[in-house]
Amino acid sequence: MTDQSPIRSGGRAARRAARAKPLADHLRPIRPGMEGGQYTPLTQAGMEAIHRAALTALEEIGLADAPASGVAYLTKAGAILGDDGRLRFPPALVEDALARANRSVTLCARDPAHDLELSGTRVHYGTAGAAVHLVDVEDNSYRECTLQDLHDAARITDTLDNIHFLQRPMVCRDITDNREMDLNTVYGCCSGTMKHVGTSFTDPAYIKDALEMLHIIAGGEDKWRERPFMSNSNCFVVPPMKFATESCLVMEEAIKGGMPVLLLSAGMAGATAPSTVAGAIVQAVAECLAGLVYVDAVQPGHPVIFGTWPFGLDLRSGAMTGGSGEQALLTSGCAQMHHFYGLPGGAAGGIADAKMPDMQAGWEQMCSNVMAGLSGCNMIYEAAGMHASLLGFCHESLILGDDLIGQAQRCVRGIEVNDETLALDQIREVCLGGPGHYLGTEQTLSRMETDHVYPSLANRSSPKEWDELGKPDLIRNATARKEEILSQRSRARFDPIIDKEIRARFNIHLPA
Amino acid sequence: MTDQSPIRSGGRAARRAARAKPLADHLRPIRPGMEGGQYTPLTQAGMEAIHRAALTALEEIGLADAPASGVAYLTKAGAILGDDGRLRFPPALVEDALARANRSVTLCARDPAHDLELSGTRVHYGTAGAAVHLVDVEDNSYRECTLQDLHDAARITDTLDNIHFLQRPMVCRDITDNREMDLNTVYGCCSGTMKHVGTSFTDPAYIKDALEMLHIIAGGEDKWRERPFMSNSNCFVVPPMKFATESCLVMEEAIKGGMPVLLLSAGMAGATAPSTVAGAIVQAVAECLAGLVYVDAVQPGHPVIFGTWPFGLDLRSGAMTGGSGEQALLTSGCAQMHHFYGLPGGAAGGIADAKMPDMQAGWEQMCSNVMAGLSGCNMIYEAAGMHASLLGFCHESLILGDDLIGQAQRCVRGIEVNDETLALDQIREVCLGGPGHYLGTEQTLSRMETDHVYPSLANRSSPKEWDELGKPDLIRNATARKEEILSQRSRARFDPIIDKEIRARFNIHLPA
Repeated sequence: MTDQSPIRSGGRAARRAARAKPLADHLRPIRPGMEGGQYTPLTQAGMEAIHRAALTALEEIGLADAPASGVAYLTKAGAILGDDGRLRFPPALVEDALARANRSVTLCARDPAHDLELSGTRVHYGTAGAAVHLVDVEDNSYRECTLQDLHDAARITDTLDNIHFLQRPMVCRDITDNREMDLNTVYGCCSGTMKHVGTSFTDPAYIKDALEMLHIIAGGEDKWRERPFMSNSNCFVVPPMKFATESCLVMEEAIKGGMPVLLLSAGMAGATAPSTVAGAIVQAVAECLAGLVYVDAVQPGHPVIFGTWPFGLDLRSGAMTGGSGEQALLTSGCAQMHHFYGLPGGAAGGIADAKMPDMQAGWEQMCSNVMAGLSGCNMIYEAAGMHASLLGFCHESLILGDDLIGQAQRCVRGIEVNDETLALDQIREVCLGGPGHYLGTEQTLSRMETDHVYPSLANRSSPKEWDELGKPDLIRNATARKEEILSQRSRARFDPIIDKEIRARFNIHLPA
Repeated sequence: MTDQSPIRSGGRAARRAARAKPLADHLRPIRPGMEGGQYTPLTQAGMEAIHRAALTALEEIGLADAPASGVAYLTKAGAILGDDGRLRFPPALVEDALARANRSVTLCARDPAHDLELSGTRVHYGTAGAAVHLVDVEDNSYRECTLQDLHDAARITDTLDNIHFLQRPMVCRDITDNREMDLNTVYGCCSGTMKHVGTSFTDPAYIKDALEMLHIIAGGEDKWRERPFMSNSNCFVVPPMKFATESCLVMEEAIKGGMPVLLLSAGMAGATAPSTVAGAIVQAVAECLAGLVYVDAVQPGHPVIFGTWPFGLDLRSGAMTGGSGEQALLTSGCAQMHHFYGLPGGAAGGIADAKMPDMQAGWEQMCSNVMAGLSGCNMIYEAAGMHASLLGFCHESLILGDDLIGQAQRCVRGIEVNDETLALDQIREVCLGGPGHYLGTEQTLSRMETDHVYPSLANRSSPKEWDELGKPDLIRNATARKEEILSQRSRARFDPIIDKEIRARFNIHLPA
C-alpha cells in the first residue's frame, strides 16, 4: 500500500543523523526539578482534616523529651511545658512558624550545576538510609558494609544523571568509633561526588568537627556558609511524639554552622505510628511541624526540609516493609501535605523489600518512586539501591535505579498538549496522500531525543536480537558498569593540598 | 522506657489470632472494580483540546477502507463518503453516537462472581495480546507458544485474585489453520477459566462457528445472549485512520451474535501514530470514536469498550516498546479521555520489554500498571505476563504479576480519611500514659487484614531470615506455584456431555 522504503532506509538514516547531534541541556527529555503534582491522593478536605488533627495533636498531646536547650527555645517562643514533661504547641505558634518558613530551599552542590532548587512540586531523586549490609549480587549474599562501599556509592552516584543527590545510604560498619565513623562518612561522601550530600551525626560534638572539615573542603568558613553543600539528615523525633534529645542538640549545632536541616520523622505505621495511612501521616506532620517550630525558635528562616518519612510495617511479622502499595501512599500523601503547607519537603521512595535486584525489587522500587514523583515530592530519598527493607544497599541496584528513575521522571514530565503535540496537521499530511506512517516526519525526527527517555542498561531488543547478543544479563551488565565507573578517576577527589590538610587533622580510613 | 512485651509476645499472638479469622469478601483490602482517578495527567483544557482535534480529524481526514457494509451503515447514519474513498464524520454525528452510548458495560463471566462492571473510574486488570513466544525461565530462552500454553495461562489466571479477566494473551502457533486456531483459542480459554474471556477472530465466518461453540457451553443461545461471557477484541482500524476491512466484518458478526466488542485501536507512536503522547491519543480517540459511530449505526446500545491502545516506539530502532514512561503516559491519558466521554474504556498496561521476569520487567510492569490504575482505567489489558514488547508470554511472570498488581490495586484504593483513620484518639491513648507504640492497639489489630495487601511470593524477610530460608528465589518459587496450580483439576472444565458435543462438532486439539 505505502512505500516502505522511508521506514527501512531513509527514515532510519535520518534518525541516526538526528541522534548524532549533541543535545543542549535545556532540550534533555528529563531534568532534576521537573514539576509533578498530577497525582493527588488526598482531597482538599482530606488535607484539611489531617492538618487539623496534627494541630490538635500538637496542642493536646505535644512532644516529650526535648533537651533543656530546646525547652528554653520553645517555651520562649510560646510552647507550654506540662507537668508531664511534654511540650505543647498552641495552634497560633505553629501557624506563625508556618507563615515565616521558607517557601523554597536551595541545596547547594560542590558543582553548582547540581544545585537543587526545592519549591512547589519540583521533584528530585537521591539515595539515603542507614543500611548495614552491602548486597553482593555475584555471591547472592549480604555482608557488612564499609567506608569503601559508601565511597564507591558516592562515586557511582556522581556519574548517574537521574540520581540527583547523595544522602548517606549506608553506615561504615568497619569503623567502630562513632566520631571517626561520622567524619569518615563526610569524607567518603564528599570525596566521591560533586552533588549535594546529606548525612547524620550521632553527637553534637562531631558536627563541629565535621564543619571544620567542610570549611577546609570549601576553602574557608565564609565559602562554606555561602554555599553549604551538605545537609544534616536529622532524626529529631523518636515517634510517637517524642523529641530525640541528642539529635535535637545536633540540629542546634547544624543550624549554628549554617547547615540545612532535614527534619526527619521516621515512624513505622502500626508500630511507632498509627497503622492507617492517614493516621501515620497525621503523626508525621505533627512531629515535623514541632520540628519546624523548633528551628524557627533557634534561627528563623534557617533552611529546612519537611521530612515526613512514615514507613510501612508488615503486621504479620511486625517487621518493616517499604516495598508495598501502602508505602507508596504514605509517601505520596506526605508530599501532598508539603504542598498544602507550601514547604519544601521530602519522603522515602524506592525501597525494595527484595533481597536482590530481582523482579520484586523492580516493581517495589518503581511503585513508590513513580507515585512520589507524580505527587510532586521535592526530595525522594532512598530512591535507589535500597534492599531488604533498608537493611541492604546494592551498587548494581543503584546503577539500575538510574534507568528506573529515568522512566519515572518521564512520567513526572507528563503529557504536553499544544498545537504541535496534538499533531493534527501531521495526521492530515500523513493520511491524505502522505506516506501513511510517521517514521520519517520532521516532527518525529526533531522530537526523538527531546521527548523520549532511552534506557541505559534495560534491554529493548527483540527475542531474536537478544539471542544474537548472547542474552545480555541485566545484573551482570550493571556489575560491568560499576567496575567501569570505579576504574575511572573521580572528578570529586580533593585537591592534594586540601586532602593533606584533612588527613593531618582527621584519621581518614580511606587510602589516599 | 515502655514495656516491650506486648510487641514481642502478646501483640504478635493477638495478631496471629486476628489473622486466623476468615475475611468476609467485602472486607478484603482490594477488589476488582475499585475506583481510581486520583491521577489526572491531562488538564480539563488538555482533554478538550484532544477532543476538538479528534473531531476535526474525523470531519476533515476521516477513515479509509471501510467494507461495503460499513459504508452503507455509516453513510445512512450521516457519514460522508469522499471521492478519495474516505468516510468523514460530521461532529454532530459523533456527538449523537456519544450521547446514545452506554455509560456502563457488564462483562459477564461463566461464574457470575467474576462479572466485571465497567463504569466511571472502576479498575480491572487482566491479560491480553498476541504473543508468539512462550518464555522458558528455566532455559532462559524463547520458543513458539502452543494451545496448551494458552490453556495453561487460562488455568493459572483462574486461580489468581488480582487477574480479573483473561483476554487471549498468545496465539496458538501449533495450529496452522486459522479457523481451527480461532476455535481452539475459544475452547482453550473457556475450558481454563470461569472469568470473562476476550479473543479476536481472523474471519467473520469463524465468529459464527465460535458462537455455535459458545451456545453449547452456555446451554443454549438464549443463555449465551443473557450472559455473554466472551467479548470480541477487535482491531477494527489499521492506524493511521483506516478501517481494517475484514475486522469490521467480524465486528458486525459479533454485534449480531450479542458479543460485547472491544474497539481496539493499536497505533504505534512514531510509526502508525504521531510520536507525541498527545498526538497518539488524539488519533486513537478519533479512531475509536469512528468505531463507536459504526457500532451505533449497526446496533444502537450494543456494549462497547472504548479501546484506545496506543503503544510506544523506540525511535532509535523503530521497534515497539511498551515498558517506558511514555507508554504509561499514553495509557493513563487515554483512560482520562474515557472519563471525559463517560465511556467504559480500556488500554494496555503492564508490558515489559525485558525478555525475562527480571528487575527491568518488574519496574516496567509496575510503572504502567499502577499509573493506569490510578488514572481509573476500566480495563487494563496485557497487565501481566507480557515480555519482549508483547512478543513473549511468561507463565511465571503471570503469577508474579498477581503480586505486583495486588500492590498496584492497594494504591488505587487510596488513602481513606475519616475520624478512625486519622487516629487522633489512638495517638492520644498511646502517647499519654499508654504503651508508647501501636502494635497491640485494637485499631491496628482490627485493620491488619482489611488495610494491608500481603504478597504471596514476594519476600519480605530480613537478610538473616532469608539466609535461613535458603535464599528463596522468586522465579523458582513462581515455577513451583505454576506446577502446583496445573497439577490441580480446573473448575472451569466443561461438563463431559458438553465437552463431547463440542468435540463432535469441532476439531479440538487439546486432549480430552
